[in-house]
Amino acid sequence: MTGKNNNGSGSSVRPPFKSLRKATYEIIFRADSTAGKVFDVILLIAILCSVIVVMLESVTTIGLRFHQVLYILEWVFTILFTAEYALRLYSAPRPARYAHSFFGIIDLMAVVPTYLSLIFSGAQMLLVIRIFRLIRIFRIFKLTRYLGEARALRTALAHSRYKISVFLTVILSTVVLVGALMHLVEGSASGFTSIPRSIYWAIVTMTTVGYGDIAPQTVLGQSLAALLMIMGYGVIAVPTGIVSAEMVLSKKMEVRTCPSCHLADHEPDAIFCKKCGARLGD
Amino acid sequence: MTGKNNNGSGSSVRPPFKSLRKATYEIIFRADSTAGKVFDVILLIAILCSVIVVMLESVTTIGLRFHQVLYILEWVFTILFTAEYALRLYSAPRPARYAHSFFGIIDLMAVVPTYLSLIFSGAQMLLVIRIFRLIRIFRIFKLTRYLGEARALRTALAHSRYKISVFLTVILSTVVLVGALMHLVEGSASGFTSIPRSIYWAIVTMTTVGYGDIAPQTVLGQSLAALLMIMGYGVIAVPTGIVSAEMVLSKKMEVRTCPSCHLADHEPDAIFCKKCGARLGD
Amino acid sequence: MTGKNNNGSGSSVRPPFKSLRKATYEIIFRADSTAGKVFDVILLIAILCSVIVVMLESVTTIGLRFHQVLYILEWVFTILFTAEYALRLYSAPRPARYAHSFFGIIDLMAVVPTYLSLIFSGAQMLLVIRIFRLIRIFRIFKLTRYLGEARALRTALAHSRYKISVFLTVILSTVVLVGALMHLVEGSASGFTSIPRSIYWAIVTMTTVGYGDIAPQTVLGQSLAALLMIMGYGVIAVPTGIVSAEMVLSKKMEVRTCPSCHLADHEPDAIFCKKCGARLGD
Amino acid sequence: MTGKNNNGSGSSVRPPFKSLRKATYEIIFRADSTAGKVFDVILLIAILCSVIVVMLESVTTIGLRFHQVLYILEWVFTILFTAEYALRLYSAPRPARYAHSFFGIIDLMAVVPTYLSLIFSGAQMLLVIRIFRLIRIFRIFKLTRYLGEARALRTALAHSRYKISVFLTVILSTVVLVGALMHLVEGSASGFTSIPRSIYWAIVTMTTVGYGDIAPQTVLGQSLAALLMIMGYGVIAVPTGIVSAEMVLSKKMEVRTCPSCHLADHEPDAIFCKKCGARLGD
Repeated sequence: MTGKNNNGSGSSVRPPFKSLRKATYEIIFRADSTAGKVFDVILLIAILCSVIVVMLESVTTIGLRFHQVLYILEWVFTILFTAEYALRLYSAPRPARYAHSFFGIIDLMAVVPTYLSLIFSGAQMLLVIRIFRLIRIFRIFKLTRYLGEARALRTALAHSRYKISVFLTVILSTVVLVGALMHLVEGSASGFTSIPRSIYWAIVTMTTVGYGDIAPQTVLGQSLAALLMIMGYGVIAVPTGIVSAEMVLSKKMEVRTCPSCHLADHEPDAIFCKKCGARLGD
Repeated sequence: MTGKNNNGSGSSVRPPFKSLRKATYEIIFRADSTAGKVFDVILLIAILCSVIVVMLESVTTIGLRFHQVLYILEWVFTILFTAEYALRLYSAPRPARYAHSFFGIIDLMAVVPTYLSLIFSGAQMLLVIRIFRLIRIFRIFKLTRYLGEARALRTALAHSRYKISVFLTVILSTVVLVGALMHLVEGSASGFTSIPRSIYWAIVTMTTVGYGDIAPQTVLGQSLAALLMIMGYGVIAVPTGIVSAEMVLSKKMEVRTCPSCHLADHEPDAIFCKKCGARLGD
Repeated sequence: MTGKNNNGSGSSVRPPFKSLRKATYEIIFRADSTAGKVFDVILLIAILCSVIVVMLESVTTIGLRFHQVLYILEWVFTILFTAEYALRLYSAPRPARYAHSFFGIIDLMAVVPTYLSLIFSGAQMLLVIRIFRLIRIFRIFKLTRYLGEARALRTALAHSRYKISVFLTVILSTVVLVGALMHLVEGSASGFTSIPRSIYWAIVTMTTVGYGDIAPQTVLGQSLAALLMIMGYGVIAVPTGIVSAEMVLSKKMEVRTCPSCHLADHEPDAIFCKKCGARLGD
Repeated sequence: MTGKNNNGSGSSVRPPFKSLRKATYEIIFRADSTAGKVFDVILLIAILCSVIVVMLESVTTIGLRFHQVLYILEWVFTILFTAEYALRLYSAPRPARYAHSFFGIIDLMAVVPTYLSLIFSGAQMLLVIRIFRLIRIFRIFKLTRYLGEARALRTALAHSRYKISVFLTVILSTVVLVGALMHLVEGSASGFTSIPRSIYWAIVTMTTVGYGDIAPQTVLGQSLAALLMIMGYGVIAVPTGIVSAEMVLSKKMEVRTCPSCHLADHEPDAIFCKKCGARLGD
């Protein structure tokens, strides 16, 4: 759809240029044509390989032995992705809009760290951000289906954002208070050396992660910890209930309205209105 | 609304005094006017800074080096908050009611620990209770929206309080019984030195926190622990289901209002008001 | 209700005896009269104290110092509870039925361990089973309300027992298979010394408890563990979903049927049918 | 039903042979007749015993002492199950179809490891796959009920597969990114020796398992870990909400059947069939 509106500053004067640009657009932005699909599949494989290269490099034994090979591969992938980014900027109907979109930023951040690593050693580890480019995978297989589901998830989360803010505020306040209390009660002997560190412990405990690197030793500290655990264990029911309620209702909304009695909640496969028996439209 | 009713003991005789008191009230209790908003934002920043000061003081390396600065800052914030508390008491239409309200108690507890620390060393760590004053933040951005959601959450939890009591009783009884059994089965060698300590372990295990500071070593103990884990893992479904059901139903209630009796909670497919029988609009 | 039917073998011939038995029944089984309420409150306090005595005895430092006091208290409580059990058996309209009921068995098990401890040392720790007697607490405050909620919970769980059986079978099979695989992959070096021990680890991991006393060290083992964790993390949604669905529907069932149009789902506070406007019965 | 269609290549010419095959089929594939039930119960006991033998063998102390007995038992069970598999292939109406079915593959995999153990030592541990044969247990007790529930579970999960794919992609991308960041921030000193190992840590943390074998030590690392924990703790609400919504709706569907077109899924308050418009009964 956006492909139709690119009657830009002077592109209508040069049809061959425009068609080349449009063909590029069709291949790298769309997955409808065979060429577009092939491009996407190759791109996904390249992304996956490049992420694996970054990971392997971080493993000391592999990183030392195959240092040169991995170094070259990293630059090959970076140059490839830089070229792809340039092509995307060139062929996008509205380059600025693409550059500011979620995928535009990810695409840029997927090449920048390699150049940065020339100045700051270690920056290349940020290349794993390329993994987010894999989200494009949904475009190849039944695009709209997945995007629809992702939108439904986002809507449900957006609808419950007020409730979740209230919930998070209560959780964070509790964690700060319990952290300070534990620092007072347990002291440095058990590892509660400061309030920030005790807050870290409270988060580890309340989210039921429980590393055990810091653990209360006194009876009072253990009682307080037990209270926090039971609270964390039970309180998870709140965000779960919020999201469940949103999901149940968003499911029920995907319906049609009866033309005769204006009843709104029919199931997707209903042909007649369940209340008055009138035939439903599509 | 409560601002209209403060025709107190003799305040109607002194209009200038009353208007000063009212202006103070508008600024520190309300967020409708610009002055009120500015006051609230400054207050929130001060609260946040004062909590950070308390936290920094608890970190040994920072606490020792900047001891004097942090000490002075703590007293500055305490004097500021004491003055604010006095002003609130002075300007509130019903001072006693404010003093006994949730925020009134929090506001008092946010200054007392500093004075207490003159007698009991360490009491100043309780100042983190100031973090709860941050809940006022919801007043600035879309007050009613957040309060409404908080009320909805509270209602859902209140409705399920009987079910949750039954659930908690079963959980706590189980934890006590399993704790005693584990003390018998494992004994002191694995860390189950007493029943209270074994109950602590049972809570750590059932809530799926799992520190690992105490862990069963015998086959029988590990079998019992495995049972407790599976129970804890599955049983979380119960409070979640309770709250979900409440949320789904409370969501369905908040729909249309009756034009005749102004009853608000009709279900989406209702045609007539369930209380007075009047026809509902769309 | 069952109190009316106790026209036993010959009790109708001796009215004074019957009334004594009935009065005893009213006091120890019911909480309607003042005497019954006082008895229940005293009983609950005694139960709580006796459980605390057992707990304190297990703490080495306290157990050694106050051994004699705690020993005497234990026997005092046991004799009191034995007398109470005898009275219950005597006054119950159908003694056999009481003896086989949930509370009858708990009441017996609350005294037996002390007598057993004369033969088997340590058996007195089983006295914590007395904690289950505290469930009687619900009888004092709004009995029916709590029992109704407990019944609703039990019904919801009973309805979903088939689904939960299928779920548990899948979980247990997975845990056995992964346990055996980990024993193969990791071997004894990381603590996976046998298949049963590896199954224990798999349960600790899948239920997200994660003690860390046994943890995979090899890359393959950690990959398998990561898969198990993600499965355990996601799969909790299944029992939660099952119970939530039951709760939502059991909530909606608590309704009445319209006498005119036979619509069944009205809210508890509806006075008129929401569809046809007819007045609903109680 | 499939038993009627086995008019194979020449089996109709030899009725006695056919009836023997059919009788074998009735006994080992069905649980309707007494013989079939007895066979199934014996089979389940044999499966359970064989799994216990494999488990016991893995426990060093037992495995060494009773090595010969367990070795012989293992081969006895393997030969028994091989014979049973041969009989199933022989009597199944469509042998190829059985061989490719879920249970056909499990049945084969339940005997192969013993033969493999002659070549690869340790392969016999894979025999625990026999545990999956226990799923047949549902056939004996109320087959259809359990299968129906299992199908309902499968349908609910299948319906939410798109949403769950989107959810898993986000989770995995987050885990990879956080893993790389932690490797950068924490370095090898705290155990974050490589990106794959840091990703393993991120999974352990986000799923709230929390072994504690790897744990962040720096302030920045602990802050990042705290964020990941809160995310993992809250985000579990998403799959739970998805499955709950599916369950609630699948529950509502299984209500009444249309007398005219036999459509089964009407909502509880429907008066007319939504497909053909016929009036529904109560």
